[in-house]
Amino acid sequence: MGAMAVDKNPTVLRQLRYGNMERVLEVLRRKGPSSRADVATATGLSRTTLSGIVGRLLADNVLLEESAPLDGARAGRGRPVHRLTLNPSSAQAVGIEMGRERLRVAIANAAHEVTASGGVHRPNRGSAREQADCALALLRDLAEREGIDLAGLSGVGIGTPGPGETTGGGTGPLGDAPGVPRHRQSVADRVAASLDVPVLADNNTRLAALGEAIWGAARGAGDALHVTLSYGVGGGLVAQGRLFRGAQGAAGEIGHISVDPEGARCWCGGHGCLEQAASVPALLRAAGRRSWSRFTEALAAGEERACAALERAACAVGRALAAACSTANPQRVVLGGEIAELGPLFLDPAEAAFRRYTAARVSRGVRFVPAALADRAGALGALALVFHESPLLAGYPTRGAAAPGVADGASAVAAS
Amino acid sequence: MGAMAVDKNPTVLRQLRYGNMERVLEVLRRKGPSSRADVATATGLSRTTLSGIVGRLLADNVLLEESAPLDGARAGRGRPVHRLTLNPSSAQAVGIEMGRERLRVAIANAAHEVTASGGVHRPNRGSAREQADCALALLRDLAEREGIDLAGLSGVGIGTPGPGETTGGGTGPLGDAPGVPRHRQSVADRVAASLDVPVLADNNTRLAALGEAIWGAARGAGDALHVTLSYGVGGGLVAQGRLFRGAQGAAGEIGHISVDPEGARCWCGGHGCLEQAASVPALLRAAGRRSWSRFTEALAAGEERACAALERAACAVGRALAAACSTANPQRVVLGGEIAELGPLFLDPAEAAFRRYTAARVSRGVRFVPAALADRAGALGALALVFHESPLLAGYPTRGAAAPGVADGASAVAAS
Repeated sequence: MGAMAVDKNPTVLRQLRYGNMERVLEVLRRKGPSSRADVATATGLSRTTLSGIVGRLLADNVLLEESAPLDGARAGRGRPVHRLTLNPSSAQAVGIEMGRERLRVAIANAAHEVTASGGVHRPNRGSAREQADCALALLRDLAEREGIDLAGLSGVGIGTPGPGETTGGGTGPLGDAPGVPRHRQSVADRVAASLDVPVLADNNTRLAALGEAIWGAARGAGDALHVTLSYGVGGGLVAQGRLFRGAQGAAGEIGHISVDPEGARCWCGGHGCLEQAASVPALLRAAGRRSWSRFTEALAAGEERACAALERAACAVGRALAAACSTANPQRVVLGGEIAELGPLFLDPAEAAFRRYTAARVSRGVRFVPAALADRAGALGALALVFHESPLLAGYPTRGAAAPGVADGASAVAAS
Repeated sequence: MGAMAVDKNPTVLRQLRYGNMERVLEVLRRKGPSSRADVATATGLSRTTLSGIVGRLLADNVLLEESAPLDGARAGRGRPVHRLTLNPSSAQAVGIEMGRERLRVAIANAAHEVTASGGVHRPNRGSAREQADCALALLRDLAEREGIDLAGLSGVGIGTPGPGETTGGGTGPLGDAPGVPRHRQSVADRVAASLDVPVLADNNTRLAALGEAIWGAARGAGDALHVTLSYGVGGGLVAQGRLFRGAQGAAGEIGHISVDPEGARCWCGGHGCLEQAASVPALLRAAGRRSWSRFTEALAAGEERACAALERAACAVGRALAAACSTANPQRVVLGGEIAELGPLFLDPAEAAFRRYTAARVSRGVRFVPAALADRAGALGALALVFHESPLLAGYPTRGAAAPGVADGASAVAAS
C-alpha cells in the first residue's frame, strides 16, 4: 500500500507565529506578574524571540513592565526587579451585538476578563454606516467612562440578525465572500476601518449560544445546544467551548428540523419545519390570537385552544431537540425567547417529549436550562468569538498589518 | 459589572509542553531535512529547549541526524552539515481495528504517512487478552515484513464494536472510567502493557467515520457525517477533520434518531428509532424474508413487498439524515454497510427524502457519497485518533513516563 499523507493545513505557519505570542500571554495570565527570565523558562522561547514579542506587546499597551521590590526575605538588599504584567485597563477585545431592538457592547482585557459592558435600546434601522457609527459612539463612551484604553485592541466581534457565514472584516477591502449578508459585511467593514483592527461578524443567535456557553447557562458544560423560541426559531451549537458552525454556517439551526412529514413548504426550502410549528406567529395562528399578550392572557385563563396549541408546539420542540441531541449529544440545552419564558407550562411537555424520543444514554446526560444572560448574551458571545478565532484571522497584533482576506479567514473557520 | 474570567483549561500546561515537540516535527514535515539552526529559527525555540527535544526524538529513533554535503554552489568547499530528518522507517503510531469478523492493523511514520497495513479475517471471539495478543502478533509480523522499527512508537489507537466512551490506556493501571465498556478497556490495557505506550480506544464505527474523513470518501471535506446501515445502524460525526463525540460519546449515532412518533420502544430507551426501521433485520421483517441474500434476490426480481420495504426504509433514512444535517451541517454524508451497498435502489429515494426535509442552504452544501475504504476505514481511523489526540493524553514521547489516568485523558477529550 502506498504512502498517504494527512492533509496539511495552510494556516499552520500563521498559527505557529501567533502561538508564541499567545503563550506569553497565557503564562502571564496563569502566573501573574513575572520576570522576562521566568517567562522564557515557562515558554521555552529564545531570548531573541521573546524580546520581539514582549516589545510589540509593550508598545501596544497590552503589557506593562513594572519595577517591583524583591519579595519577602530578600527585600532588604534588593535592587528592583522588572516584572511583566498584563495591563488591566487595556482593552484587548470588544464584542458588539446589534439586535433587532437593542445595541450592546462589551469590553475585555488581555486576561480575558470582561471589564465593561453597556447597551441602549434602539430599533436596528438605518444604513450599515449609521448602525456602525452608533455602535462606535457607544463603545467610545463606555471606554471613556470606565477609563479603558482602546489603543491595544486586537479585534472586534459583531453579531447581527440574519443567516449567513462568519465574515472577517479587516483594515482593507474585504472582497466578495459568498453567503455573507451584504449588510453584515458593510457594518464589519466600517468598524474595521474606523478602529483599524480586524473584525469578525456572525449571526447574533449563534453568538448568544457562545456567550451562554462561556459565561452563562451552559458555562462549564463544554457541549451545549442553544435554542431561541421567538418570532423565529434560531439556534446555535457549541462544542468543547467553541462555536460549531458546519459547512454553510447553519449548524444548530434547529428551527429547520422537520417535525411533520406532511407539513407545508417552509421559506427555507424544507417541509414541516419546527419554526412553522413552534414560533410566536405559529402559536398565535393556532390559538387564534392577535398578539403575544392576548395569547399569554388566554393561557393564564386556562383557555383550552391556547393551552392545546402550546402543548402541541412543546411536543414539536421536544422531538426536534431529541433529533438534534441524538446528533450532537450536548450536556446542556439552553432555552431562550418568549416561548421558553412561559416556564413549566411550555418546558415540562417539551422536556417530556424530548425524553421519550431520545436514547437513555443521551437523555441522562442532558440538562435543560433557561438562558441566563438575557440581552447580554450576544455581545459576550461576540467577545468570545474574538478570543477564539482572531488567531486564525490574522495573528496578533494586527494594527497596521495587511488586512486578511475574507477567503483566508473564512476558509480556516468554516473549513470550506 | 464585575470582571468574569473565561474558564481555564487544566490541560494547558501539558499542551504547551507537547506543543514545542510537535512544532519541531511540523517544521521537519514541512521543510524536509533541516539543520538545527534552521529548526530553531522556524520555531523560535531557545537552543536549550530545542536541544532537549531533539535529543529525546533522536533517542527514540523518530529523528535521524545525517551528515549531508553542502548543496549546489557551495559543494566544493564544504565541510559536511548535520541535518535533522524524520526517520521514515520508524513507526510513530499504530491503528488497530477489531471488527466483528476481521482484524486489521495500520502503521504510520512521524510524517503521518501510512507505511504499512494488513489484516486477517477471523471472528472477534475469545477473551480480551487473546484478542489483544492476536492483534499484537499481526502488528509485529507486519512490521518485520516491511522493515519497520516499532521502538519509537508514541501511541496506539484501537477500535472495537459496542457503544461507549473513548478510553485512554497507559503503561499503568487505568482505574475505573464510567461508561467505558469493560472489554475495550481490557484490550487497551493489554496492548498498552505489551508495547509500553499509551493506547486510545473507541467505537469502531466512529473510527471508520474518522478514517473516511482523513483518507477516504470525505477526504478534504472537513465536516462529515458517516452512517453505517447494516445489522445495526451506526454513525459518526467529524468536525473540521476531527472526531466529534459529544458529552457521552454518542454524537453522530443517527440510528437512534426517532423517525416515527408512534413507534415502539427501542432497546436504547427511545421510541421509533431509525434502527427499528432501516436495519437489515428490520428490512427482512418488513419484506418477510429470512436472509439478506433472499432479500436481495427478491429486490432483483422486482418483488413488490421487498421494494416497498426498501423504499420506506430509505425515506426514514433520508428524514433522519435531514434532521442530523440540520443540526451538524456537514459537507458530506458517507454511507456504508449492506443497505447502502444496494446502490441507487436505496440511495435515490433516501436522497430525495433528505432533500425534501432539509433547508435549501444546508441541502445544497451536502454531497452523498458511498464509503470508500471498505474494511480499512476503522484501522486508519484508529491511526488518525492517535495523531489527533495523543497530545491530550500524555504528551510525546511517553515511553517510560508515568501512565496518564483515564480521568485525565478522558476529561480533556470528552469535556465531561
